[in-house]
Amino acid sequence: MAEAGAADTGRRRARGGGGAARRAERTSTRHEVARFIERRIPDFEVLDAEALELIEANAETVLEEIGVNFVENPAALERWREAGADVQGERVHIPRGLARKLCATAPGRFTQTSRNPERAVEIGGRNLVLAPVYGPPFVRTYEEGRRYATMADFEMFVKLTYQSKWLHHSGGTVCEPTDVAVNKRHLDMLLAHMRLSDKPYMGSVTDPKRAEDSVRMSEILFGGALPADPVMTSLININSPLTFDNVMMGALEVYAAAGQACIVSPFIVGGAMAPVTIGGTLTQVLAEVLAGVAYSQLVKPGAPVIFGAFVTSIDMNSGAPTMGTPEASLILYGAGQLARRLGLPFRSGGALCTSKLPDAQAAYETANTLNAALLGGVNFMLHSAGWLEGGLVASPEKLVLDADQLGMLHQLAGGISLDENGMAMDAIREVGPGGHYLGCSHTQANFKTAFWRTQVLDYKPYETWIEEGGMDSVQFAARRVKHLLDTYEQPALDPAIEEALQAYVAGRKAEEPDAFG
Amino acid sequence: MAEAGAADTGRRRARGGGGAARRAERTSTRHEVARFIERRIPDFEVLDAEALELIEANAETVLEEIGVNFVENPAALERWREAGADVQGERVHIPRGLARKLCATAPGRFTQTSRNPERAVEIGGRNLVLAPVYGPPFVRTYEEGRRYATMADFEMFVKLTYQSKWLHHSGGTVCEPTDVAVNKRHLDMLLAHMRLSDKPYMGSVTDPKRAEDSVRMSEILFGGALPADPVMTSLININSPLTFDNVMMGALEVYAAAGQACIVSPFIVGGAMAPVTIGGTLTQVLAEVLAGVAYSQLVKPGAPVIFGAFVTSIDMNSGAPTMGTPEASLILYGAGQLARRLGLPFRSGGALCTSKLPDAQAAYETANTLNAALLGGVNFMLHSAGWLEGGLVASPEKLVLDADQLGMLHQLAGGISLDENGMAMDAIREVGPGGHYLGCSHTQANFKTAFWRTQVLDYKPYETWIEEGGMDSVQFAARRVKHLLDTYEQPALDPAIEEALQAYVAGRKAEEPDAFG
Repeated sequence: MAEAGAADTGRRRARGGGGAARRAERTSTRHEVARFIERRIPDFEVLDAEALELIEANAETVLEEIGVNFVENPAALERWREAGADVQGERVHIPRGLARKLCATAPGRFTQTSRNPERAVEIGGRNLVLAPVYGPPFVRTYEEGRRYATMADFEMFVKLTYQSKWLHHSGGTVCEPTDVAVNKRHLDMLLAHMRLSDKPYMGSVTDPKRAEDSVRMSEILFGGALPADPVMTSLININSPLTFDNVMMGALEVYAAAGQACIVSPFIVGGAMAPVTIGGTLTQVLAEVLAGVAYSQLVKPGAPVIFGAFVTSIDMNSGAPTMGTPEASLILYGAGQLARRLGLPFRSGGALCTSKLPDAQAAYETANTLNAALLGGVNFMLHSAGWLEGGLVASPEKLVLDADQLGMLHQLAGGISLDENGMAMDAIREVGPGGHYLGCSHTQANFKTAFWRTQVLDYKPYETWIEEGGMDSVQFAARRVKHLLDTYEQPALDPAIEEALQAYVAGRKAEEPDAFG
Repeated sequence: MAEAGAADTGRRRARGGGGAARRAERTSTRHEVARFIERRIPDFEVLDAEALELIEANAETVLEEIGVNFVENPAALERWREAGADVQGERVHIPRGLARKLCATAPGRFTQTSRNPERAVEIGGRNLVLAPVYGPPFVRTYEEGRRYATMADFEMFVKLTYQSKWLHHSGGTVCEPTDVAVNKRHLDMLLAHMRLSDKPYMGSVTDPKRAEDSVRMSEILFGGALPADPVMTSLININSPLTFDNVMMGALEVYAAAGQACIVSPFIVGGAMAPVTIGGTLTQVLAEVLAGVAYSQLVKPGAPVIFGAFVTSIDMNSGAPTMGTPEASLILYGAGQLARRLGLPFRSGGALCTSKLPDAQAAYETANTLNAALLGGVNFMLHSAGWLEGGLVASPEKLVLDADQLGMLHQLAGGISLDENGMAMDAIREVGPGGHYLGCSHTQANFKTAFWRTQVLDYKPYETWIEEGGMDSVQFAARRVKHLLDTYEQPALDPAIEEALQAYVAGRKAEEPDAFG
């Protein structure tokens, strides 16, 4: 059987300083949360050494011969020039081997800590950390259908994520609160993560000033100064192909300088922002990540970074992005191998789907990606629950359905135990040919932990199911959403810290007029 | 990109005698069908050599010390006695190593041929052959809901399977035609496979006499005598734990003697028919398959057989079977390794799910199993499309949704091409930083085959989707079911053969009164 140990609970394994852990014990709401997945199964690898070397050689050729653009960012160009790159206008040609050499100072794994140290996550190695959906401007609920997302929705998603045993990380822009001004909503979003959850979170990246706000608010949350370990892992998208804009790079510069972690992630719809073939896409992804990670190390050697890859394909009929496809899985497997050879933590998407509804299409697409991400050695999975309609929509019902599947990943990652209890020879002897295992002593001793248990799927007999209304998955999920929100309790937070956070947000909001769009 | 070659079409690669192939060209309806999947990706393996040896040693202990029951089958007991087993009553104790030695005469791969030789499948090696759902007494359709299955439903599933590009095999009891007498329905089912499809099929196993009918009808179909290669692969379930009943063994004896292939398959709900732990279940599965396959070789050395494993877990709350679980995936991965070490083709389940509806639950469960089966090295996947409600229900909408996902498996199995076109360096040079790949020459040259294309999922923009009715996956699937049935054309069959088959069925039906239940 899979070992339950893969899903270490915060309860059983307090980490960090004993004092901090005990304080958290006293002040935080007690509910069972898995810290992160520790894989006891191997990675699935589709490329051999020769193939990997070819992709790596071609990526170096791309960097040297074609180069990358750092747009409207004279300081970045100067850093590259000093590092030995050939800078022509905004085009940076990086000599073979330079980017890889610069990447060597980035840590292979790091701890992102949290205000509750029991919720700290270790990113890298054999671990997998799960964070919810990021970015949708719309929300779809079973009761209300599809509409623009609001700050109330944002808070609902933070609460649902906090309540989930299987989501380790509170995420970032779980949806876009479109009822708050664009230039101020990052403040409310950060405050929601900090107040309503004690899981680790992400910072704002939509403007370097907002990244600075994220650092300032984190300092307040942590009692005046940031701890040694990073407290944010933020999402820096590369403008594929081969372009690094000054907004995202500006945020990266803020975070790297403050010792905070970033995901350096090409955002690619294959066939549009990268070649239509997998080999070409992997080459471009590697070139882009090499340049981006190298740049983070030019800003601050040793800054924690993650090798990101968000790659979907394009539907050649409609031009729409597709998700959960075989090409996406193959790219994920290949990119994972490239990241491990580079010695960097690896990030993928998670519950990706294109369907407008949390229906069969959504679930096929999602499960394809979740399985590939677990087996492909992903260390940080963004969008691992709640994603709908190509990322335009966040759905609370999809979030609880996805989160249930994430529990499955925990058990799968545990592998197979072959100790005496696992091998069960005494049970086979006891039951014998034609017998029944339900009543045997081995089953009695193990049944509580032997199998993964769903919290939302339905296994009842048909007749019972009909009597209870013949509900589909979305209706079961809607019931669970309501239960989780009804039983939510806010984790305790020092009132002085909360007050200081509120004051910071109020002060910053007063400094500039509202901007929308 | 994944190479389309994984999905070789019958059109491009006719096999067997040129005359037969040309005859098939003339007489069969022309539509594109993938022959089978040829994997260009590795197997995912969760057990190391030491673990595998432990399971193998324990399985030998089970066979020797505990033994297996061959029930009401004196001939089988006599065969075992002659082979050197210690037979006590109906209990057969098989000395260490004997079963494995007997298994050595079973072929590692074989061709199951078909009346259209272009549809012949190769079972074993790196191949994966896909067959539809098997066994449900109920049908659920979008229009009519859930009801008992009839012969008309059976014919519908044969036609849908025939129409699918991605289902290579017509299967067996695609549903139970409950409107035909139990002792006669096998005749109508076989006739439907033979008339309405030219894909390979399975024989009846519910009585040795019905297996004989299957052989007789196959002789007629193939012009009076069976060809050298088997024309049926039939499903022989083991009555786990460790029991071989005389009905299933009787059918096995008929098929093995006639050189026809059998799947020797424990049917296990873990926690009930096998230990509640994965290691114990794998041990029992291996012991059972060793005994069953060895017995097939006692009947006829060289008889083609498949290492089967149908394993689900039990929901410890309700006692209901669960599907698409992490335990089921781990068992599949482990059993695949054991089968490969034994040198036998490996069979698993496919679109397994417990949901009553083709909803998100059904699709998560299904996709989990489909992904595990592809990566776990399965050679013959039964139930790969159309399964619902734990196998109680067959669904046409689920069948077309699943079949679409099977197309995805074909592309995933193709792996990553790293030839010059695949690496796309010229495209990366042509487009450059900030450019767009949609219009570039490499995209134009590759876009038709670069990406897997769905035939049922929806990628349209939200507004278009709303205008067209805001349909969910089941509604899209229902539309496709209708299209496939409307465009179905029966493959040509020699009228003399069809007449002889009809006469055989009529004659056999006249021999005995109807039996129901």
